[in-house]
Amino acid sequence: MAGEKEEGLQLLDLWVSPFAQRCRIALAEKGLAYEPLEQDLSNKGDLLLRANPVHKKVPVLLHGGRPVCESLVILHYLDEAFPETPALLPSDPHARAHARFWADYADRKVFECGTRLWKRKAGSEPQLQARREMVEALRILEADLGDKPYLAGEAFGFVDLAIVPFAAWFLGYERLGEFSVEEVCPRLAAWGERCGERESVARSLHPPEKVYEFIGYLKDKYGDK
Amino acid sequence: MAGEKEEGLQLLDLWVSPFAQRCRIALAEKGLAYEPLEQDLSNKGDLLLRANPVHKKVPVLLHGGRPVCESLVILHYLDEAFPETPALLPSDPHARAHARFWADYADRKVFECGTRLWKRKAGSEPQLQARREMVEALRILEADLGDKPYLAGEAFGFVDLAIVPFAAWFLGYERLGEFSVEEVCPRLAAWGERCGERESVARSLHPPEKVYEFIGYLKDKYGDK
Repeated sequence: MAGEKEEGLQLLDLWVSPFAQRCRIALAEKGLAYEPLEQDLSNKGDLLLRANPVHKKVPVLLHGGRPVCESLVILHYLDEAFPETPALLPSDPHARAHARFWADYADRKVFECGTRLWKRKAGSEPQLQARREMVEALRILEADLGDKPYLAGEAFGFVDLAIVPFAAWFLGYERLGEFSVEEVCPRLAAWGERCGERESVARSLHPPEKVYEFIGYLKDKYGDK
Repeated sequence: MAGEKEEGLQLLDLWVSPFAQRCRIALAEKGLAYEPLEQDLSNKGDLLLRANPVHKKVPVLLHGGRPVCESLVILHYLDEAFPETPALLPSDPHARAHARFWADYADRKVFECGTRLWKRKAGSEPQLQARREMVEALRILEADLGDKPYLAGEAFGFVDLAIVPFAAWFLGYERLGEFSVEEVCPRLAAWGERCGERESVARSLHPPEKVYEFIGYLKDKYGDK
């Protein structure tokens, strides 16, 4: 039942993770109460290692203690285990395929290029290559958005909630890659703003400046020297 | 209706692609007739470029001319667009999450390590690293298999059909990595054999020796020199 703790829903979480954030947005959209369990990834706890022994990563959803790993798998699980809550995925098979395709695209391209942007040395050829690929990936995403208000169409949907966490990372991508999302993809930038006005999104994301600070920490700790 | 050409189903295909093969197995399991359209990836045709402009890859399912791209998206689409055919995914939400998790795992780990095995120079440190990671990935998969006959449980299911195409690549992985799947993962090797006896699989895969020959072609053309 919306608003109650559903047979003990818990989310092994990390505030800045776009993959955890999409789960938080989904839980909020569904009105499902849960206990967020913030993880320390520099010192992974037993609960995380037991719940996700394969990838050892957040997010993990625990439902009555049983783990579901990988964020897109979790989004599907929420639709299927709580069919009485508002559906995240659309009902039309083609629209569902569209949503899955683009969520996967963002994970493979946008996130992956973003990682190379902070990991590779500033100004090095691999970092410049990551910048070119990031701009291209965002342009491809913007082309799919077209003139629609949301990637899902007229209303905010699965594909928007899956991808909007990356919008909080745009500022970091811009500073690392020395480009402006607003300039190269104005409609995508406006889409990010539009999604950010939604309560479920506003409550689940963090200010871009704080994300940028975190990227600096990643770069110092794990970036190429 | 099973056995008839469903509103013009066509599969942009490549005989050796594990991603195309899982779609072929799924179509066979569902008894859906389709027109296979073998693609020449060294000279990509207009149909492929129009149907999958983002990734420009096989497989693509055309349903009444409308494209669905990415193999796992296609498998979901087949279940959702043809609900009267035998379901590929199980009905239980946890079992569905399990199937999705492991199919994604195989794509990210097994396929990715396999690519590095042929792409990196034989005996180089990156290739030896790929070998270690491949053995580890197969062991993790085998641990999930446990004593079950199939990854899906007692019966062949979604996760089996998604992963079994990689079994036809095992011989190639073994020769490139100088290890034996039979030795390091005997239950997984037996699972591959067991799945291979199924008609839908036998009809969709190709002999490991032929796959190995193809890997040699890939290595010559795209491998590190």
